[in-house]
Amino acid sequence: MTLWTEIREQPDALRRLINGNQGSMGQIAAGIADAHPSWVLIAARGTSDNAARYAQYVLGARNRLSVGLAAPSLFSVYKQPPRLADALVVGISQSGESPDLVAVLEEANAQGRPTLAITNHADSPMARVAHSAIELHAGTEHAVAATKTYTAQLAAIALLSGALRGDIDDLEGLGADVERVLGEWDRIAEAATLFAEVGHAAVLGRGFNHSTAFEWALKLQEMTYVLAQPYSTADFLHGPLALVTRDFPILAVAPTGATHRAVHGLLERLQSEFGSRLAVISDNGATLGLADAAVRVPAVPEWLSPITAVVAAQVFCYCLARARGIDPDSPRSIEKVTRTT
Amino acid sequence: MTLWTEIREQPDALRRLINGNQGSMGQIAAGIADAHPSWVLIAARGTSDNAARYAQYVLGARNRLSVGLAAPSLFSVYKQPPRLADALVVGISQSGESPDLVAVLEEANAQGRPTLAITNHADSPMARVAHSAIELHAGTEHAVAATKTYTAQLAAIALLSGALRGDIDDLEGLGADVERVLGEWDRIAEAATLFAEVGHAAVLGRGFNHSTAFEWALKLQEMTYVLAQPYSTADFLHGPLALVTRDFPILAVAPTGATHRAVHGLLERLQSEFGSRLAVISDNGATLGLADAAVRVPAVPEWLSPITAVVAAQVFCYCLARARGIDPDSPRSIEKVTRTT
Repeated sequence: MTLWTEIREQPDALRRLINGNQGSMGQIAAGIADAHPSWVLIAARGTSDNAARYAQYVLGARNRLSVGLAAPSLFSVYKQPPRLADALVVGISQSGESPDLVAVLEEANAQGRPTLAITNHADSPMARVAHSAIELHAGTEHAVAATKTYTAQLAAIALLSGALRGDIDDLEGLGADVERVLGEWDRIAEAATLFAEVGHAAVLGRGFNHSTAFEWALKLQEMTYVLAQPYSTADFLHGPLALVTRDFPILAVAPTGATHRAVHGLLERLQSEFGSRLAVISDNGATLGLADAAVRVPAVPEWLSPITAVVAAQVFCYCLARARGIDPDSPRSIEKVTRTT
Repeated sequence: MTLWTEIREQPDALRRLINGNQGSMGQIAAGIADAHPSWVLIAARGTSDNAARYAQYVLGARNRLSVGLAAPSLFSVYKQPPRLADALVVGISQSGESPDLVAVLEEANAQGRPTLAITNHADSPMARVAHSAIELHAGTEHAVAATKTYTAQLAAIALLSGALRGDIDDLEGLGADVERVLGEWDRIAEAATLFAEVGHAAVLGRGFNHSTAFEWALKLQEMTYVLAQPYSTADFLHGPLALVTRDFPILAVAPTGATHRAVHGLLERLQSEFGSRLAVISDNGATLGLADAAVRVPAVPEWLSPITAVVAAQVFCYCLARARGIDPDSPRSIEKVTRTT
């Protein structure tokens, strides 16, 4: 029941994150602005790496900041850290414990660059090393598969983006939006059950929801053992489309927004040319109409849609695991905290 | 036979690339040095994106340059390009034609940043837009699956790294090293045949060969329709390890070097705990000894090993396609030049 509880806790966890940080975001943003970074380097792994993908689009589109994802082994294994001149260096980690990620922040400090930790543990090595920290206030996460810490990471990035623009967005509605997604639990369970026999799938998304495709695929791997491969719809056309056979299962995140037309168009093609089995998370009726399994989410601004969409994806995975006779609270082989070097 | 020919052409193509560019590299490097970039942004998709992954490690470890991979849709779909202050902006594309990648270089020009194209077509839109260009001299590539243009891209990055250090490395030996790999064709074919019945696989590598894991997986998808998923060995421990069942096929790139111990250790664990079926590309006898299918490559410096290792991976995929009754020259559904927007 741990995972079930943690998925359902997310509206409250989001409210705690927003209330717990709104007051300090102005100071964090001012500290960053003083350092005049011309780009942002983010160190993260696993689920947190998907939050970093979200940050690449949010900080890029809304704050005009270029974001790169770090190669931690340059710092930890090769011990040949690159120069970090003009960078803001951000670590994202639920536990704040992975030594290779802490090494990136330590090197940034040594090079005199501003560092920021986004973590659920204010007393973790990563939070202690960083100049400033956004604490997730998600409460202890017991389940191996990260859910409430992931949505809290996304909301923390959204808060940061607003603070850097000097007008913290009103994110109070997010909790209610996520509650609406959770209210669809039974319908999402029905949709997931249609995919109970599936052994593999491609998961598609683009732009802001590139992150959601990656996170949906990772949850499928962890909770349901489906061989799920995430792609940007653009990259999918560069080769992987060759994988698609007549009944190849395709999962897609396709909310209304700038990327909608491209994703919708690809789904139409996959259905008409290949008869693909489609599961779609969207607020758009026409796109949901293409799907064998339609998961409707509330309409929100595209840049916030990864937060509502991924909750639908979590519920989908949880219910799919159950339908496949798997206990999603006890994934085989993996542990909660992974300390890679 | 097109693909067969192009794989075998690689020693000559590498020699042409090196001879065709060695003279101009000093001037390109001087132009870049004059602009004092503090970081590098690379725009690429598909196979070329894997070359960008290689550049992240090569320019990071050898030139201390931080490298980020661009999110092209910020430029093309969202029309909200981030600031590129202090960046060198590099486009990598076989055809040089994809509009979203050209848009990244055009924006960099508009922001007054230095731009470099690495492409096989000196008269392509990308080459015309960029301030300077490294031409691959690979000759026309007819096969849909990129092979000789990929190794040429890697060698172009290696040349650039040397030029930026002020001492162009002697890469003349690369052609002969790749010839030695091709001389193992029959043995690689035997190894590949052991995996003829496989429907899915995880492909592992780390550091410099993170790129090789991604490219091996992409070639498997394009040529053999195996559902191949690439991972850094560190990311693999953050979740995807849950996928591993008793006979889960694992392909790994594990050359001698700084990352060898970590990759070797994971392979030992996968074999002893899970009885995984292993195919390994390495120059290390002990690591090859773990493998069901051992693919030996010549010992080269670790930073150049992605060039020799990926040729072994290409031959593996070509022979695996044949063993599966697939014509790798005619992959279904995909086209040579993909123009994403």
